[in-house]
Amino acid sequence: MPAPIDFYFDLTSPYSYIAADQIEALAAQHGRTVNWHPILLGFVFRTTGVSAPTEIPIKGDYSKRDFARSARMVGLDYRHPDVFPVNTIAAARITIWLQWRKPDMAKPWVMALFKALFTQNKNISDQAVLAEVGQSLGLSASELGEAANDPSVKDALKARTDEAMARGVFGAPFFFVDGEPFWGNDRLPQIEHWLKTGGF
Amino acid sequence: MPAPIDFYFDLTSPYSYIAADQIEALAAQHGRTVNWHPILLGFVFRTTGVSAPTEIPIKGDYSKRDFARSARMVGLDYRHPDVFPVNTIAAARITIWLQWRKPDMAKPWVMALFKALFTQNKNISDQAVLAEVGQSLGLSASELGEAANDPSVKDALKARTDEAMARGVFGAPFFFVDGEPFWGNDRLPQIEHWLKTGGF
Repeated sequence: MPAPIDFYFDLTSPYSYIAADQIEALAAQHGRTVNWHPILLGFVFRTTGVSAPTEIPIKGDYSKRDFARSARMVGLDYRHPDVFPVNTIAAARITIWLQWRKPDMAKPWVMALFKALFTQNKNISDQAVLAEVGQSLGLSASELGEAANDPSVKDALKARTDEAMARGVFGAPFFFVDGEPFWGNDRLPQIEHWLKTGGF
Repeated sequence: MPAPIDFYFDLTSPYSYIAADQIEALAAQHGRTVNWHPILLGFVFRTTGVSAPTEIPIKGDYSKRDFARSARMVGLDYRHPDVFPVNTIAAARITIWLQWRKPDMAKPWVMALFKALFTQNKNISDQAVLAEVGQSLGLSASELGEAANDPSVKDALKARTDEAMARGVFGAPFFFVDGEPFWGNDRLPQIEHWLKTGGF
């Protein structure tokens, strides 16, 4: 069985949203599974001194246009959120808690949040929005509260982000395939080529 | 006749090298021509406050790996230069001079410099290297000297860079197709889709 693909993402990253929609099918076509790792991109940016693309002069307007166009390219809806970037700590903690306790719910949770943020203009840092998305998946508000406040989940999210940086992750989405690093949704064609050829 | 594609590049940009190798054939397949615009990326970066990817912590090592892999992906050789980035003012000035005086020589000149820098580890800020590359194309050292020191060419390079920034260029390679901006060699698939569909 070939090694799983490691997929690092932040829920406030538009290109992570697009990649998340694509990576499972791409991996499955080549007999691979995907390990999903929520990380805190804001923490990574502070460590590397990098800014979000939308915060850089001139680049900001282009980026918003490119988010939408890159989504259209694969047939996905995109509506840039009024509040952006958003704080994803609670959402990411709940993701890890689900990976531990209800693993089948983790990816649906992530995809539902991406859709809420990037197609419905919902602020996923808002507890009420998290509760609403949870409810649509059969997760109770009390479960979500427990998940978001579990100290071991807090530690795990911090550790996951630290490990990502130690491994060379400086942005999202970020992938490792057979140890080879790939940064960005726009590297999916190279990942596909790698999976087909066994490395190039 | 559909509008030409505008292609902004800097000779020290690895992704510009890869894109330069690809864009003419892609454009021709769709009945388009390409206008090549040398710009000074260092000046653009100083204006926008952006750093070259190789100068950002963690991102630097990844970038060098990605330059080579992105070149291999399209069957191009790549050897990261010992001196990088290099000053491309003289090379860019000569490019504009050739566009004015010997237009058929401008693209061969650019491609020969990209090859010298990114496959032969030659420092294209060095006058002797420029002379050697010029000689291989039948351009004399005195012609090159005249080109590099022509005051109107100096002004034109500055104006070309200023115009690029005014138009929204913040990196290289950068393209405009029917007015639509595309940044990066990795946007060639979107450009291809745009050319096929007339916009999406």
